[in-house]
This record gives sequence, structure tokens and C-alpha cells, in this order.
Amino acid sequence: MENQVLGKTVENKQIIFKSYIEGIPKETDMELKIVKELNLEKVSKGSNGLLVKNLYLSCDPFMRGRMRDFTGSYLPPFVPGEVIEGFGVSKVLDSDNPDFKPGDIISGFTGWEEYSLVYNTDQMRKVQADDMPLSYHVGLLGMPGFTAYAGFYEVCKPKRGDYVLVSAASGAVGQLVGQLAKLYGCYVVGSAGTKQKVDILKDRLGFDGAFNYKEEADLDKALRRHFPEGIDIYFDNVGGSMLDAALLNMKIHGRIALCGMVSQQSLSNPQGIHNLLQLITKRVKMQGFLQSDYLHLFPRFLEDITSLYKQGKITYLEDMNEGLESAPAALVGLFSGQNTGKKVIRVAHH
Amino acid sequence: MENQVLGKTVENKQIIFKSYIEGIPKETDMELKIVKELNLEKVSKGSNGLLVKNLYLSCDPFMRGRMRDFTGSYLPPFVPGEVIEGFGVSKVLDSDNPDFKPGDIISGFTGWEEYSLVYNTDQMRKVQADDMPLSYHVGLLGMPGFTAYAGFYEVCKPKRGDYVLVSAASGAVGQLVGQLAKLYGCYVVGSAGTKQKVDILKDRLGFDGAFNYKEEADLDKALRRHFPEGIDIYFDNVGGSMLDAALLNMKIHGRIALCGMVSQQSLSNPQGIHNLLQLITKRVKMQGFLQSDYLHLFPRFLEDITSLYKQGKITYLEDMNEGLESAPAALVGLFSGQNTGKKVIRVAHH
Repeated sequence: MENQVLGKTVENKQIIFKSYIEGIPKETDMELKIVKELNLEKVSKGSNGLLVKNLYLSCDPFMRGRMRDFTGSYLPPFVPGEVIEGFGVSKVLDSDNPDFKPGDIISGFTGWEEYSLVYNTDQMRKVQADDMPLSYHVGLLGMPGFTAYAGFYEVCKPKRGDYVLVSAASGAVGQLVGQLAKLYGCYVVGSAGTKQKVDILKDRLGFDGAFNYKEEADLDKALRRHFPEGIDIYFDNVGGSMLDAALLNMKIHGRIALCGMVSQQSLSNPQGIHNLLQLITKRVKMQGFLQSDYLHLFPRFLEDITSLYKQGKITYLEDMNEGLESAPAALVGLFSGQNTGKKVIRVAHH
Repeated sequence: MENQVLGKTVENKQIIFKSYIEGIPKETDMELKIVKELNLEKVSKGSNGLLVKNLYLSCDPFMRGRMRDFTGSYLPPFVPGEVIEGFGVSKVLDSDNPDFKPGDIISGFTGWEEYSLVYNTDQMRKVQADDMPLSYHVGLLGMPGFTAYAGFYEVCKPKRGDYVLVSAASGAVGQLVGQLAKLYGCYVVGSAGTKQKVDILKDRLGFDGAFNYKEEADLDKALRRHFPEGIDIYFDNVGGSMLDAALLNMKIHGRIALCGMVSQQSLSNPQGIHNLLQLITKRVKMQGFLQSDYLHLFPRFLEDITSLYKQGKITYLEDMNEGLESAPAALVGLFSGQNTGKKVIRVAHH
């Protein structure tokens, strides 16, 4: 029983955020710290908090945005010298919160460490016992999956037969967008950064077409080849040159959903986009969005996607590393496309 | 009676488009031609056409887009050596079209010349006898006014109390956007390029604030000064640096309507926009539009705006030149902001 550890003194490994950065994150921007004697006392009365054991931690591109000293965004920056925060799946050891009890599996924001004291439980969800793998709750059934779901249905407003482009298409969000678009009756082409990923898009995820953007000298030409009639929906996960090329290939009344812009997250002076005049001549709607604005749809999402997955109608690619120590390299790897599918760290076997 | 000219031989002055251009239009890109002996015969039977005498011609920024050799836009390019085409108000001299009869006043596409044979009458409207000045039908009651109306209500989706920025705010479109926004209960600030225009915005058009963008070293700072709480709606008539600065100042769930981008129309390599990441963090919708997609609203627009004007609730600034010969300079002047209000050429007194 997990509860047997309560009151004991254990070691707690942590990943510490060192200091604010410029450019692409490096492993040395984080460091492993071992708190030798963490006293696993009960959560104090009246704190409304939880003591949890972290099982899975999620590596997400948005975390780069919290590594700079900028408070004007939708999440506060990390605190230098403190544990990195991210989405995770955890097991409750002790609870002062009436919504959660010891033994519950939960998903939401937690620390990059073995054990966490969690006080902000507003967005914490209890994971219902099920035969879906627990790690899926930071991917297919968590924030990235819900981003794909809300972005595709609510922002892209698809129509059957639409021509759909997805960038970073094998990533945590892109892989689900493409498959939902196929199920909706769209024609779907994905871009990715290796031959292996391109093959996966076509062979395992059922995309109609796919290309390696690193091998295309002219992205506009590549898009014209894949979309001779133009693009109705561009689900943008990268920004930059791909967005500029997509703008040149939009159809009249097309829609662009902006999600993440991973290529621009690390630039202090982001790349200029030159083809916005196309938004006028083609009457295109371009919309940035965050999944957190659509949380009322979360229960329906969970039901829909779980059902599609169990029917074998969608595939989920997960790329898991073992051990908290591997987390910094895994996070850094996102920004050079090292991962194939959703990047997750297994911290402990439950 | 106008019909007395039918069958006669008259002189027809024309403004000819010389050849495709790069950069900002110059007067020498057009030339005056006098057709010495235009035989004002009746329109041939079965042509469905009209013979018209042009009264007012409209100078509009979108015409720049037709001066380049590019067929992929929403209107075909001008034909070198042929008469320039634009919006106008004309009087029907002869008609083979059952919808129009001699003596009717019409508005729609016509030629930059004294007399025109018009065969494409699909979008031609009959101007109802009224006490509104006829020239208003290429401005307040025509394409620019309708652009403001459709763009503000249908694209910007205003709410009472919204903070609204309008660029090129004393222009044909901007002046009406700002006044509609005030009538809707919004807080409205306009940008313009001279002190005189800024004074007009505040003193005559009732804007809450206005500034001369040419005197602001830092547009971001200027916007922060005028919108300490941020911008809900940016009605963009210019693109470029103003758009980039507005992006930095949008409020959450803000809306940007892209209309014309006059600063970018003449550039073969348009200026890069660097702050699109803001669309995501602030969940902003940016939409390009053309008034022609909303024509079902035109009758309501005409009724609403005519009524508001007659009640003295809106002001209309028109900048009129006399004589067809003045048209090239008037069109060119749009691109350096020479006009104050809607630029119109009076070709003939009716």
C-alpha cells in the first residue's frame, strides 16, 4: 500500500529550472537535484492540498514559453531554482481535498519530481478506472488530444471533402488532427521532419499524403503539388515558413488554426510572415486558440476519443522515456523533432 | 434631353492604363486619350448592354492590385492600352437591358472616360431618386461604406464597450467604421497621417482619441498610451507596422478585420509581420474579407446608413476633384494619403 510511505522519510528526485533562457532550451538549463530526506507527512489540514506520487510527466512545446522572464502570457514563467511544472499523471497518497482520496489517479499540473505537494487542484481531473493506458491522459486523452479536438471541430469548422494540411503532423496534436479530419471525410496531407515520420503518416495514420519539409527547397511548390486545388483548412503547429507558404495556397473562405508555433517559440525576434494579404483576397479566417477556452467540451471529447480508440478507428503514437533523469533531454529534443509522437516520461510504475 | 446626343458624334476623353507596374502608382502610368469621333449609336440589340454618361468616378486603393500582371486575385488585372475601370455613378443614355432605361442613374463598374458602353451589368445598381448627393453612391452609400458596414458588424462582431482601433481612419472606409463603432457604444481611437486628419477625427467624427502615426517613433507605445487596457477590435486598413503593433496590444478574444492593407498593396515583397504568436496567447481571430461576400446585406445597409445620415448621426467626408483629367493624380495621391476622406472625380454635371 502506498499509504505505508506516509510519515516515512524518502528521497525525492527533482528537475530544477536554473534560470531564464534565450533561444532553444538546452539540457543544462535544468538540473537534477536530490532532496535526501523528504518527510512524507500528511498534507496539512485546511490546505485543500494533495500529496502525490508522479507516474508520468509530459513534455510539451508550450513549456518553452515559461522558460523566459515574461509575465504577459497565459501562464506565468517558471521560477528559477524551483521544480519545473508540467502536465502529469499522478497517484494520490494523501489528501486534504474532499474531491480526491488516497489511491485516486489524477491528471493535471504537477512538478517534475517523484513526489509533489499539489495545492492548485482547480484543473485537476480524476482519471476513471478504465483499460486505457494511464500515460494517455497526458496525450491522446489529455491536453494535446483535446487541443486537436477543440481546434479541429471548433476553430477549423470542417466540411466533408475539405482539403486539410497539418504541420508537425506526427506530433502529439497533429496525429490526432489528421485522423479526425480523415474520419470527417476530408483529404489530409501532413508535413514532418524525417522520412520515418512521413512513412508513419501515410502507413500508420492513414494520411492521404505527407512530405518531409526539410527536403523541400520550396515549400510553396510542395504545397501546390499536394494541393493543386488549394487548402481549405491549415492546422498550423509550427508557424514560420510553413505558415507563409500555406497562406499562398489557401482556398477562398479557408480557415487557419494557429496552435503552438513551435518553430517560433524560441526566437526573441520571430520570423516575419509576408503573405497576409492572401487573407484578404481569399477571405481567410486565421485564429489562434488555446484548449483551455473549450473545457466545457472536455467530457464529450473524452467519451468520443476513447470510443474511437477502442473501436480501432484511431491510432496513437507515444514516445516514452524511462526515468525522471531523462526528462531534460526529452524536453529539449522536442525542439529539434527528436520525438516520434507524444513525448512522455515514466517516473514510476504504479 | 440626354437622348438628343444619341446618334451624334462626340468627343470621348479616356484615361488609359499604360502597362503593368511595380511599386507605387505614378501619374505617368496612365494617360489621357481623346477619341475624337465617338459615334453615340444606340446599344446593339441583344447585347444586354448600356450606353452611359459617367458623372462621378471613384478612386479606391484596391485599384492598385489590378495594375500588376497577376490573375490569381479576386479581380482580373487591367488591360494595358485599355480604359481604366472603377466604381462610378453614371446616367443611362441608351439601354438594351430590361432592368435599366434611359435617364436612370446607376452605380457600379464603369470606365474612366466620359461615355462608356457597359455590358457587365450583374452588379449594377439603380440609384433611387432621393435627396442624397449622387456622388455618395461611390462612397458612403457604395462599396467603401458597405465595406465598413459589413466589416464592422459581420467580421468584427462588436460588443458594447469594446475598445476599437481604426487605421486610415479618415479614409473612405475608416471614417464610417469609427462612427458606427461610436454609435454602437464602443471606445474608438483612429490613426491617420496628418495633424489635420487627426483633428477631423476628434472634432468632426467624434472619435474618442486619434493620433498621427507619422509622429510616433514607437507605434506599440502609442497604442499602449491610447489603449492601456488593450484593444478588442482592430479594423485594419493598412497592414504593415500598424498591424504588427496592434497585435502586441490585443485583448483576449480580440478580433482583427483585415481590409485593404493599403501600405502593402504596392510592395512586391510585403513587409513581414512578426507578432502573430500573439494571436495564440490572446486567442485572437484575424479575418480578411471583401464586401462582395455580404451583398445580401446591401439593402439593409443602404436603409440604415441613409437613415443615420439624414438624422445627422453620421458625418461623411468627401474629397472631390473636378474633371476626368484630374483622375490619375487623384488615384496616385491615395497612396501617400493626399486625400482627406473619400476621393471622387466629378466627370460631368448631370
